[in-house]
Amino acid sequence: MKYIIGMDVGTTATKGTLYDENGQSIAEMQQGYPLIQDKVDQAEEDPNLIFDAVQDVIFTLAKKVSGEIAAISWSSQMHSLIGLDENKQLLTNSITWADNRAEYVVEEAKSSGLAQQIYERAGMPIHPMAPIYKLIWLKQKHEELYRKVKYWLGIKEYLIFRLTGKMAIDIPMAAGTGLLNLQTLTWDPELLRAVEIDSEQLPELMQPVAIVGTILPEYSQKLNLHDTQIVLGASDGYLSTIGIGVLDQHSYALNVGTSGAVRTITRQPVLDKKARFFCYAVDEKQYLLGGPVNNGGISFAWAKNVILSSEDTAEDFLNLAQTVPAGSAGLLFLPYLGGERAPIWDANARGSFVGLTRNHTKPQMARSVLEGIIFNLLGASHALTENIGKPKAIRITGGFVKSDFVRQMLADVFNVPIVTLNNDQSGTFAAMFLARLALGLSKDMAEINDYINEERIYFPQEKNVQVYQELLPIYNDLVHSIQEHYEKIAKFQSMHPELFNKTL
Amino acid sequence: MKYIIGMDVGTTATKGTLYDENGQSIAEMQQGYPLIQDKVDQAEEDPNLIFDAVQDVIFTLAKKVSGEIAAISWSSQMHSLIGLDENKQLLTNSITWADNRAEYVVEEAKSSGLAQQIYERAGMPIHPMAPIYKLIWLKQKHEELYRKVKYWLGIKEYLIFRLTGKMAIDIPMAAGTGLLNLQTLTWDPELLRAVEIDSEQLPELMQPVAIVGTILPEYSQKLNLHDTQIVLGASDGYLSTIGIGVLDQHSYALNVGTSGAVRTITRQPVLDKKARFFCYAVDEKQYLLGGPVNNGGISFAWAKNVILSSEDTAEDFLNLAQTVPAGSAGLLFLPYLGGERAPIWDANARGSFVGLTRNHTKPQMARSVLEGIIFNLLGASHALTENIGKPKAIRITGGFVKSDFVRQMLADVFNVPIVTLNNDQSGTFAAMFLARLALGLSKDMAEINDYINEERIYFPQEKNVQVYQELLPIYNDLVHSIQEHYEKIAKFQSMHPELFNKTL
Ligand SMILES: Nc1ncnc2c1ncn2[C@@H]1O[C@H](COP(=O)(O)OP(=O)(O)OP(=O)(O)O)[C@@H](O)[C@H]1O
Ligand SMILES: Nc1ncnc2c1ncn2[C@@H]1O[C@H](COP(=O)(O)OP(=O)(O)O)[C@@H](O)[C@H]1O
Repeated sequence: MKYIIGMDVGTTATKGTLYDENGQSIAEMQQGYPLIQDKVDQAEEDPNLIFDAVQDVIFTLAKKVSGEIAAISWSSQMHSLIGLDENKQLLTNSITWADNRAEYVVEEAKSSGLAQQIYERAGMPIHPMAPIYKLIWLKQKHEELYRKVKYWLGIKEYLIFRLTGKMAIDIPMAAGTGLLNLQTLTWDPELLRAVEIDSEQLPELMQPVAIVGTILPEYSQKLNLHDTQIVLGASDGYLSTIGIGVLDQHSYALNVGTSGAVRTITRQPVLDKKARFFCYAVDEKQYLLGGPVNNGGISFAWAKNVILSSEDTAEDFLNLAQTVPAGSAGLLFLPYLGGERAPIWDANARGSFVGLTRNHTKPQMARSVLEGIIFNLLGASHALTENIGKPKAIRITGGFVKSDFVRQMLADVFNVPIVTLNNDQSGTFAAMFLARLALGLSKDMAEINDYINEERIYFPQEKNVQVYQELLPIYNDLVHSIQEHYEKIAKFQSMHPELFNKTL
Repeated sequence: MKYIIGMDVGTTATKGTLYDENGQSIAEMQQGYPLIQDKVDQAEEDPNLIFDAVQDVIFTLAKKVSGEIAAISWSSQMHSLIGLDENKQLLTNSITWADNRAEYVVEEAKSSGLAQQIYERAGMPIHPMAPIYKLIWLKQKHEELYRKVKYWLGIKEYLIFRLTGKMAIDIPMAAGTGLLNLQTLTWDPELLRAVEIDSEQLPELMQPVAIVGTILPEYSQKLNLHDTQIVLGASDGYLSTIGIGVLDQHSYALNVGTSGAVRTITRQPVLDKKARFFCYAVDEKQYLLGGPVNNGGISFAWAKNVILSSEDTAEDFLNLAQTVPAGSAGLLFLPYLGGERAPIWDANARGSFVGLTRNHTKPQMARSVLEGIIFNLLGASHALTENIGKPKAIRITGGFVKSDFVRQMLADVFNVPIVTLNNDQSGTFAAMFLARLALGLSKDMAEINDYINEERIYFPQEKNVQVYQELLPIYNDLVHSIQEHYEKIAKFQSMHPELFNKTL
């Protein structure tokens, strides 16, 4: 027997799954690490701590099969940025996607036209999460450091470098830096010029199925492995899409956990007039389109604590919301508690309830929160639909869509069949599948479907669809007209941090 | 000893207070009656039930002093409408201020220009509460009935007619019909023509201090009274203003119970360009200006039940709100749960929370509700201030302003000293004082101040004033831009009454 480990390097933890020769999961392990948030808008991680966590996971999983690991393959968070010096030593932490310190750079780039150019050349939405904006920020604010950095890479590239000594990056991950040209699938010379770095300073571009190398003897020994191949793998955005069998634009993948994302794959690059979605190249025949959404389960958790209390469970909240019909009697919730990326791309956005009457009570407020989160997900999805047409079905994953109630609501709001799967390990699973392709155990991407089974299909219910079709135009109009006030409210809030104190 | 009974005919109950010769209250009694709401927007009362309640109250109070009642004087709800036939028998219930069936008439009158004309000639705001709009509605929808009615009057006029056989109305009450000319203080011929009625069909116009007559022998006997004079009295709007010593525009009277109102008295008629307040004549030297506000304690009670629960008390809610500083960390509440009269005059208005972040929890939501109710009261008051200047102080009454916390908040938001009084019986008390003037026991209106004592003054606190001055422009902008959506939301809600069902 030869085993494969699929790794998923997330923001709060790294998860590893051990798969057997038939692609069956036989063990799982997870190890967390802290986010460093000492300053406003900062969100960094210590690459060494992540590397430690990764080694723990690999060591523990490998031990279960006496180290007989043919390959380790990777799924990872996107948009992280790490600088190494000429001796390939760390000069920075990993600056994650959640770090917003380049916000002002984005504002300047919007005015100068650079932001639009980055979207058009690289398919990268106009947002400080992109490493290209972080590079400009570092260049402006930490010039000395910037000059010292010889190599720039992301967290997955760093981990693989530690294990193999080689610096390589998969194309979909590279696309998420904002530096990769969407047409040529190479580092974009003009964008490199904008950040004053040279392609030599970046990892080598490879396919996700590339074998970067054999694990270095040092770690082979330490982790008790034998001839284990390190397969490059890809970004979690891409892998969580193909990992649930969404291989073309006939279906969309909707993941809603703490935050959410809607994604699909097209044969050609597609850009949006309003830059509402990303378009990341995978290879010449595959482009990952999608919108990341901040306000998913995190808004749900907030509402549960505020409408009910922290002692109540998610189920209590869902049970309450289920006692009233679709439409929450005309109460609308705008879920923008933490600013928003897709579809409105406004860091200052704030949450609202609108349409309250004296007949509204807790159950309608609860239901309106779920409906508002889903209306916004529809908005993110709608940006795709306007450009590439409606999907035949949407495959869903994540903690927010665990209940039949929410799943049916998704079907009714989206007015599209909603499909659940009995395999929810999309990240580590797809990473493993890439290793199978790399090792020749599977021949073709389409074979991934052999491992994925539909669990249940939720069809739209006419009566509810009708109600939502009436409410959605009102919701969308509101989203636009309240938006003009966010900047003033956000400014007031940031000028008065003391008002957030719980006690006087 | 000679005693006076002050009566206050409210919407839910009639209250009577027995006063001695020195104006000291010695007994009180209250008797309720139901509101009839069989149809949407209907709000009627049975005049006979109210007359029964009135007799009960008078009988019980008079018995305490062996019927030695020199006079009975009246404060009463405004805007009610009753039709009598040629035999002075009831043809209708009392159609109260809360009845909204003339809403469509108001919409038509806005388009035709009639509404603006009514405001300019009569000082009556553009709202279906006004009897003039109810008359047009009855003329259009119940023509046969309309033709049968020989006499039109309000509930106080009806009660006094039953007790004296005479039909009389005080000028401030007459002003609230929308038919009284603001300049001449007589029924307006042009407006009478608009409703096709003759001034003969309306009660005789008199001063509030007029003695209408001695109580009819039938009721004198039944209620065990001796030679009791019936003093005309006036509208509760006027009496609750002078009843707390607000006799000119140097101070405003703010009452916030279930609903609210801000009022003051000017020497000249004053009209607002945007028709945001009423201007009711009292006599040639007194005009009552003010704005009625729907969303006072009723929004507070709703929020308590929704943010806490129906088991929690008003004090629990206030205690919670007090744990966080002024400004609710930038969370804004628009209190329009039941549409709104002053200052936005929009029956479709709905409530909103705007500005939510994940750091907002129940205490900030609670506080924002109080702040939102008060921001809106400020809006109603601001319409007056724009026309007649800022008051030196505001005298407050009502269930919503019972706590030090809310009183201080009023001072901080209004940025004006807020004064409480130790006499809160303003309606029955001022009615009694009119009887004193009628009987010659007092000589001059200004003597009312001998009975009124200031209890406490709340001065604005600079730090909170500052925060509210920053938030108010944001709040006001929001009020305007959300307003354009109310019609669509209200329409959705009225088209789907089934969505308000609590269970599926
Ligand atoms: N401690 C409190 N703080 C604030 N509001 C309160 C408090 N207690 C009661 N209320 C609110 O005050 C209102 C009742 O006040 P009040 O008795 O003055 O009203 P009312 O006479 O029915 O009203 P109106 O004067 O409008 O006819 C209720 O709506 C209630 O929710
Ligand atoms: N029953 C439920 N219904 C809806 N949302 C839920 C439920 N249980 C948990 N959540 C929400 O789902 C989110 C966690 O989902 P998960 O997919 O585990 O997230 P992630 O991996 O993005 O952290 C949390 O924000 C939580 O509030």
